[in-house]
Amino acid sequence: MIRVSILGSGNVATHLINAFLKADDVELVEVYSRNIGDIAHLKNEVQITDATQNLTPVDVTIIAISDDAIAEFSNHLTIKGIVAHTSGSVSMSDLNDSLSKGVFYPLQTFSKDKSIDFKTASICCESENDKSLIVLKELASAISDKVYEVNSDQRKKLHLAAVFVNNFTNHLYQIGKLICDEHKIPFEVLHPLILETAKKIEEIPPKEAQTGPAMRNDLETIKKHLAQLSTHQKEIYTILTNSISKTYQ
Amino acid sequence: MIRVSILGSGNVATHLINAFLKADDVELVEVYSRNIGDIAHLKNEVQITDATQNLTPVDVTIIAISDDAIAEFSNHLTIKGIVAHTSGSVSMSDLNDSLSKGVFYPLQTFSKDKSIDFKTASICCESENDKSLIVLKELASAISDKVYEVNSDQRKKLHLAAVFVNNFTNHLYQIGKLICDEHKIPFEVLHPLILETAKKIEEIPPKEAQTGPAMRNDLETIKKHLAQLSTHQKEIYTILTNSISKTYQ
Repeated sequence: MIRVSILGSGNVATHLINAFLKADDVELVEVYSRNIGDIAHLKNEVQITDATQNLTPVDVTIIAISDDAIAEFSNHLTIKGIVAHTSGSVSMSDLNDSLSKGVFYPLQTFSKDKSIDFKTASICCESENDKSLIVLKELASAISDKVYEVNSDQRKKLHLAAVFVNNFTNHLYQIGKLICDEHKIPFEVLHPLILETAKKIEEIPPKEAQTGPAMRNDLETIKKHLAQLSTHQKEIYTILTNSISKTYQ
Repeated sequence: MIRVSILGSGNVATHLINAFLKADDVELVEVYSRNIGDIAHLKNEVQITDATQNLTPVDVTIIAISDDAIAEFSNHLTIKGIVAHTSGSVSMSDLNDSLSKGVFYPLQTFSKDKSIDFKTASICCESENDKSLIVLKELASAISDKVYEVNSDQRKKLHLAAVFVNNFTNHLYQIGKLICDEHKIPFEVLHPLILETAKKIEEIPPKEAQTGPAMRNDLETIKKHLAQLSTHQKEIYTILTNSISKTYQ
């Protein structure tokens, strides 16, 4: 049984709290928030607190607060046991040197309104020593089947790659929806294509999975498409089309 | 029982042949290819031919050949019954006027090496008259749960939207994989994020699902990201970041 506390009450903290409460081999001991009201609903299930001075000793304390605040926040902690943050872009070394440092980074897109199946979410662990790493990976395995060891440099690159495959991809979905809305086509017509495109790369590398006019260098179709787009959409279409063309030249 | 023939032996034709052979309420009568060798393996299951002059009369003849060839190919057909093409970008009116015209457009990404579950693929039907439309929709329903009536103008827009949500999205996956490869991170770490991003928009519109530094106008993170990218990746990052920023200003 791994004893865990969570410091934070945002999206990531909330999803982790729910996952740990359900996990068999984890005891969620305490949750901290500077606004105790945000976690008052948890008081029958775990200890809650708005003070960092008297945290109950546990095996792993997880800091799940906004990236900018992690380093400064860690300066106020005196707790024993592993202290891990959940950020993709903050180095492990940014945590205060008095702590036993670690990272517990769930690489997933979190929304307040949509529950997450942690079982299929990647969790990237890092630690200062092998012993702590084993504990963090064991904790991650209690809620997920996809546990990876990723160092701080790699984690930064993953975070960057995630901007492309998540943030930018979602923006392309939004452009697709705009085009549908303008022509009274239900956006759901595109859902199966979107899902299949995402699933496909689990079997075929994206370079091999590429299709479409840019990859075929089908200038006729590209010209027809450009004529139908707004100035702004045209810019995006052109730069991505050129990028694809270059890849397959 | 709807009697169907397929003219063509490419990706879309092959996937449709497999789906119709399995469908309960469909009899696949004949398959045509100009290279009979490409369909010889089907000869125990259906009639095969390389001549368009003597096709067996059926309810629906589906032309599943490359977009550019559809109009000219249709001039050589004299068959009765509905003649529908499968293209996203060709107008129904491009079919020869002597035919009973229709469109049977499966909006999905097809690869030779990956089987398609038609049940969850959108099929967009169009026809010159209500009677034919009913037959085409019935045929589509025999293989899919997602059947839509979409006119030629809407279909062109869907095809355009598909370039954004499929072709361009896949290219972003490829950039994500490049970043992973360069830093010895297994690309599979990103798979759950990619899949969740795609699934999310079935519940939350993409505009609400957007996350990331561009949406938060987090200039510090954007600057850090840009410093890590190649010139070429930087261009794509910048144009998509600006586009997201504009959307949430």
